[in-house]
Amino acid sequence: MRVMAAQINPTIGDIAGNAKKILSSLGHARDNDVDVVLFPELTLSGYPPEDLLLDSSFIDALQEKLKEIAPATKGLFAVIGLPRPNESGVEKALYNSAAVFQDGKLIGFHDKQLLPTYDVFDEARFFQPGNRPSIFEHLGKHIAVTICEDLWQHSHTIGYTNYRSDPVKELQEKEIDLILNLSASPYSYQCERVRRHAFSQSARALQAPLILCNQVGANDQLVFDGHSFYLNAQGELVRLAKGFAEDELLIDLDLNAASSAPPEDGIKNLYQALVLGIRDYFAKQGFVKSILGLSGGIDSAVVACLAREALGAKNVLALSLPTRFSSPESYADAEVLAIRLKMLLRKISIEPIFEATLQTLQPYFVKRPWDATEENIQARIRGQVLMAFTNKFGGLLLSTSNKSEMAMGYTTIYGDMCGGLAPLADVTKTNVYHLARYINQEREIIPLSILQKIPSPELKANQSYLDSLPPYDALDPIIEDYIEERLSPREIAKKRKISFLFVQEIVHRIHLAEFKRRQAPMGIRVTRKAFSKGRNVPIVQSWSL
Amino acid sequence: MRVMAAQINPTIGDIAGNAKKILSSLGHARDNDVDVVLFPELTLSGYPPEDLLLDSSFIDALQEKLKEIAPATKGLFAVIGLPRPNESGVEKALYNSAAVFQDGKLIGFHDKQLLPTYDVFDEARFFQPGNRPSIFEHLGKHIAVTICEDLWQHSHTIGYTNYRSDPVKELQEKEIDLILNLSASPYSYQCERVRRHAFSQSARALQAPLILCNQVGANDQLVFDGHSFYLNAQGELVRLAKGFAEDELLIDLDLNAASSAPPEDGIKNLYQALVLGIRDYFAKQGFVKSILGLSGGIDSAVVACLAREALGAKNVLALSLPTRFSSPESYADAEVLAIRLKMLLRKISIEPIFEATLQTLQPYFVKRPWDATEENIQARIRGQVLMAFTNKFGGLLLSTSNKSEMAMGYTTIYGDMCGGLAPLADVTKTNVYHLARYINQEREIIPLSILQKIPSPELKANQSYLDSLPPYDALDPIIEDYIEERLSPREIAKKRKISFLFVQEIVHRIHLAEFKRRQAPMGIRVTRKAFSKGRNVPIVQSWSL
Repeated sequence: MRVMAAQINPTIGDIAGNAKKILSSLGHARDNDVDVVLFPELTLSGYPPEDLLLDSSFIDALQEKLKEIAPATKGLFAVIGLPRPNESGVEKALYNSAAVFQDGKLIGFHDKQLLPTYDVFDEARFFQPGNRPSIFEHLGKHIAVTICEDLWQHSHTIGYTNYRSDPVKELQEKEIDLILNLSASPYSYQCERVRRHAFSQSARALQAPLILCNQVGANDQLVFDGHSFYLNAQGELVRLAKGFAEDELLIDLDLNAASSAPPEDGIKNLYQALVLGIRDYFAKQGFVKSILGLSGGIDSAVVACLAREALGAKNVLALSLPTRFSSPESYADAEVLAIRLKMLLRKISIEPIFEATLQTLQPYFVKRPWDATEENIQARIRGQVLMAFTNKFGGLLLSTSNKSEMAMGYTTIYGDMCGGLAPLADVTKTNVYHLARYINQEREIIPLSILQKIPSPELKANQSYLDSLPPYDALDPIIEDYIEERLSPREIAKKRKISFLFVQEIVHRIHLAEFKRRQAPMGIRVTRKAFSKGRNVPIVQSWSL
Repeated sequence: MRVMAAQINPTIGDIAGNAKKILSSLGHARDNDVDVVLFPELTLSGYPPEDLLLDSSFIDALQEKLKEIAPATKGLFAVIGLPRPNESGVEKALYNSAAVFQDGKLIGFHDKQLLPTYDVFDEARFFQPGNRPSIFEHLGKHIAVTICEDLWQHSHTIGYTNYRSDPVKELQEKEIDLILNLSASPYSYQCERVRRHAFSQSARALQAPLILCNQVGANDQLVFDGHSFYLNAQGELVRLAKGFAEDELLIDLDLNAASSAPPEDGIKNLYQALVLGIRDYFAKQGFVKSILGLSGGIDSAVVACLAREALGAKNVLALSLPTRFSSPESYADAEVLAIRLKMLLRKISIEPIFEATLQTLQPYFVKRPWDATEENIQARIRGQVLMAFTNKFGGLLLSTSNKSEMAMGYTTIYGDMCGGLAPLADVTKTNVYHLARYINQEREIIPLSILQKIPSPELKANQSYLDSLPPYDALDPIIEDYIEERLSPREIAKKRKISFLFVQEIVHRIHLAEFKRRQAPMGIRVTRKAFSKGRNVPIVQSWSL
């Protein structure tokens, strides 16, 4: 039996476009004598469609398109994900479903049994859980069709919930020759190993080979990494599809299914996730050009490299926007980088605007000392100039704020936080350095001086980030422990052998900055817990403050 | 039997403060010979605590505080809402619960059976549903304890889901003398009638009097209006607590329970909801001073009136920030309003900053015609100056954008969208006028000229909003139908007897502005569907575009 996992990159709501990709893969399957074709979760709508699911005309259009696709499954066993109406009228109006076709005919559905409702997932908002596992027979084989979370419970690796039912246990009572899983499993740093580990337990428990087809591509904050795979009945990895690109994984179940262990590269995958996140955010909206402020610091240097990789050098315009506090070295570094990236860099002094702003405010600010106000003014003039360029010439502004800054509120709202997308919003400063070294691994692209100097916002004379923040190597582990690992301040102090009061002060600052993050540009989620989607903390609250 | 519904205004996470309010009401209850005291849903944590619920130290602290409160229920039957651990280890880790005390002893819990997971509610993210109704005996009476949604299913007025179980039906099999309901039912325009209608059906079905205690106060976007009530066994309203203020509703069940129909005033309640939304957003964070741009237009005039009511005239600073395009009439109107409100108004010309900005950009914009870029620049300079004042002197900036503008994207991101709170973000322009007339009902506060002139952003010569938008009386009904009523463009065209293409164009513009709204300041939710919380539409999607 030959199986294809069609790892496609759908666009949310683009029913016609997604159907075209499905039809194309069905054609390739036939050309390659494939018997079984498997697509990702919610193939036809894209994942996650969110509140578009509440629009009944959207649901109707999906069902119509499914009927059109049916004939193209002639000669195949094909499994296509889509939301479908719950006709019973009881509880939620939809199922998160997989339509199963055999030789051009719809022979049934599998409705997702376990609905993740935690972190970035809110499936209980829309869907009714299915109440049974689904087994179909094709060419004499018993094929279990499952959807993503259905196979996660068995490994007990979820953390937020402990489902009452375990579809793997229900399937253990049946005869099964092959397990198919439609997934939309988003990328997070080093998640691939966890995912394969979870699914290998299901394969072993059912003593059957398992083929998972994962969605690829970015939809808003979420990046789906692809990495579809084929595990043998011992749960060992036999084949792995591409990461961060569309792929059609062709599997012959009758050939030797020996395990192969692919190399893992956490930082390379992080880099690719960010590039795909930028590329899809632009391409799926029809944007081509980007703009960013290139300060000579490491954040904007890394964003420039990512943008160039995602969009091409000719589609990235870099502006250097110096004031009296900007050092010549910073501009020199920005210039070297722009030349190496073959990127247009314009230098525009914002001193006259800064001066006019100070003059205008002087009668009201008289005798008040210089403080963060004047620093924010500079950052906001930069936002003003960058936005004016996007307004006048089109394109999207990239914000260069990183996760450490966003955590601490060490960023100017309506200033450096201006932008359509903030590629580094879920990347700590420590990982920004890792990315820079990865970018430089073959040859120096980001000038070493940028990696070596102590970061400074250059918003007043002789400024260092250490005037306002602890060193990043002390700060970032606390941010990771508190946000991603969800440890309490006491647990962090114990784990890291550091002062509880210091941890508490950091956590306090994280919560005080919540109001800024609520107005932040969208980030690209690359950790298990990003600040945007998936983390709902009230602004007005007294517990963590 | 005497019952008190203690309609308190908790702060999310302020366990000590909320406990103090509970203890105070328990004392008043004893002073007034009350037998039964009822508090709102999640009394001790405040509603909605959102992801604070994932912090186990928060849950532990709540259970500890509950133990401390217990002795204060001596001589009473008291019902206090809080999240409590689900000890079974199956599914979600918590119940949304009501602790029931009798004479100082904890005698049981009722766990909420129906968990709303739609619109602004995401209770399935945290809670496991309770699996049985709860009846307690006190002074010979059978008292059913229920929590909010438990009693909504029976009326079939929910719309987003149709729960499999109906606790009212389960209760119908039992003997019941009194129904208690702990609620955290947020305000939306004219919701009070719907809420009472829903609960009167439960009272009638169970042929028992019903006392509902609703939370009051604003937490982030949500305003809880209070309006706790006592319905007789025929489902008729007997007593109604205050709206938008704390109250202790004292009820003697042995007295005549004749119905009384209170007057309804939709606009007055809308006004009060907005005032409370502003007041609590400031007070619960410890902010005192506000600032806003007073343009001479109707939106900023109404926000100024709301802010003065919420915070006091001396805590509102108004800035008039004219350019060459600002009319003397607009300033005159602003000045009259500021004098009438006894509010400090400062006039600061932003022409020098505008000129410096144009000069700086001129070499790059050469030969490009004047367009929205130059308009946005002016709006962003205003944001810059307003933010500089809050940075230098403290306080919070109020954004004056209204729902019609936010719907159409007819507002400048990082310009008029700057601010900590946008009081009118869920109020259409039509309702802004209604509010202005309500404010003027006793005497003219907002100059009539502001109500009479055609709105203009005054960002270029002779500008009218009609250059960019349809008339508000044509636009606003479409926004309401599409967003709040959730009708499709085709249904709207049919209902309103207007062009389908026109409706489609409006809907298209609504979706194109999604990226702006994602970075908008928090609004105050006053309709059934606000743009912020409760409406999750992807930015990158092709269905509605």
